[in-house]
Amino acid sequence: MKILLVGARGTIGSAVYEELSQRHEVITAGRKEADVMVDMRSPDSIKAMFETVGNLDAVISTAGEAFFGPLAELTPENNEIAIEGKMKGQINLVLIGTPYLNEKGSFTLTTGVIMDDPIVGGVSSAMAGGAIRAFVQAAAIELPHHIRINDVSPNVLVESMSTYGPFFPGFEPVPAARVAKAYARSVEGAQTGQTYKIYV
Amino acid sequence: MKILLVGARGTIGSAVYEELSQRHEVITAGRKEADVMVDMRSPDSIKAMFETVGNLDAVISTAGEAFFGPLAELTPENNEIAIEGKMKGQINLVLIGTPYLNEKGSFTLTTGVIMDDPIVGGVSSAMAGGAIRAFVQAAAIELPHHIRINDVSPNVLVESMSTYGPFFPGFEPVPAARVAKAYARSVEGAQTGQTYKIYV
Ligand SMILES: NC(=O)c1ccc[n+]([C@@H]2O[C@H](COP(=O)([O-])OP(=O)(O)OC[C@H]3O[C@@H](n4cnc5c(N)ncnc54)[C@H](OP(=O)(O)O)[C@@H]3O)[C@@H](O)[C@H]2O)c1
Ligand SMILES: NC(=O)c1ccc[n+]([C@@H]2O[C@H](COP(=O)([O-])OP(=O)(O)OC[C@H]3O[C@@H](n4cnc5c(N)ncnc54)[C@H](OP(=O)(O)O)[C@@H]3O)[C@@H](O)[C@H]2O)c1
Repeated sequence: MKILLVGARGTIGSAVYEELSQRHEVITAGRKEADVMVDMRSPDSIKAMFETVGNLDAVISTAGEAFFGPLAELTPENNEIAIEGKMKGQINLVLIGTPYLNEKGSFTLTTGVIMDDPIVGGVSSAMAGGAIRAFVQAAAIELPHHIRINDVSPNVLVESMSTYGPFFPGFEPVPAARVAKAYARSVEGAQTGQTYKIYV
Repeated sequence: MKILLVGARGTIGSAVYEELSQRHEVITAGRKEADVMVDMRSPDSIKAMFETVGNLDAVISTAGEAFFGPLAELTPENNEIAIEGKMKGQINLVLIGTPYLNEKGSFTLTTGVIMDDPIVGGVSSAMAGGAIRAFVQAAAIELPHHIRINDVSPNVLVESMSTYGPFFPGFEPVPAARVAKAYARSVEGAQTGQTYKIYV
């Protein structure tokens, strides 16, 4: 398969690259050091990326930023980081990218445990995750050409504990390599409209 | 209680008004014909509304617009109707309104059945609902002064079947008066972080 991986340099993205590049052609995308440059906050940039890479069998996003911090510090302005990045960025990959997918192609987006199991400081990221999950479930019944869509909702990663650990008291971190398998399940399997929770 | 009801002229809002004005002071808000004018797409307008009405015991939103139509016609541009209205509008009521709420006050927002049970044409509204639900659940553990937050997720309303009926094949419509009781449950009860589903 020919797979586009947006966010390939990230903690999750690099594990997904490791997993899938063994048996597929994986084109990396991101804002720097990637096969193709994209800032998914810009629909024009997304469009240009798809024009550059041409038809695909799968699009994976492990990209997306969000403000982490107390609700008391969450404002309409800094809430936009998650809305523009994690939420609209990933959704617009689907809205703009659908015509570039081959028959039976797939989209796999990224959400996260805190949309189900909230933590202090995670409101904005949880919000974006909830939007993505509902979008995925609804879009699944309408995508053309048997194109599928799923999202992966990881628990906090072992590899991220040094940065995010204090936000996740009592959570059981999962290795990135295990999370990466869920992306393979989405891309190489046949399910659609699913949220693969790496915590149940 | 002194309650602010944003979207009071709407199908759900007028039923909520009917239910709660019997025993509380309900201040109506909306873009027209309301006690206080607000366009919740604008943070400045929200701020001005709270300054006008002063301290409150409860804020209810039954407001929010979304593009309804086939996924093939959903674009980054028309997806903004739900993002700006139903999603950011309701979330910004909370981010901006929290300082105006009295001890043990509450927020009650509106989502909808299609975030759980998707329909053709409802992707954008489902997305906004999913964002609100995750926001509610996460914000509940951080709001100060014992302020609570819930959302009500109605099935399609009996009163809306003439307009939305064809979108909801096989759904069992619920009367607005029954939906309105869930808002009372949220405002007059003591729960927080809940989604009151009027379909299970
Ligand atoms: N790490 C965890 O423990 C964990 C757990 C659950 C969920 N998640 C979620 O998983 C996602 C990825 O997490 P991560 O820890 O792997 O993040 P990360 O290490 O920061 O990697 C994110 C990648 O996304 C790319 N990216 C960010 N914004 C972009 C944009 N606007 N356009 C294009 N590329 C963009 C970045 O690429 P460039 O630097 O090249 O721009 C970066 O390589 C996030 O949504 C996060 O909330 C993470
Ligand atoms: N009706 C249903 O069957 C049903 C079922 C499930 C969920 N829902 C959800 O419930 C919500 C309300 O539905 P509804 O049928 O009651 O809608 P509606 O009859 O169209 O009423 C919506 C009300 O919200 C106000 N409003 C809209 N945008 C606003 C803004 N930017 N600022 C301030 N006020 C705004 C409007 O007031 P003005 O006209 O004064 O601007 C209007 O009175 C929607 O999110 C809908 O998706 C509805």
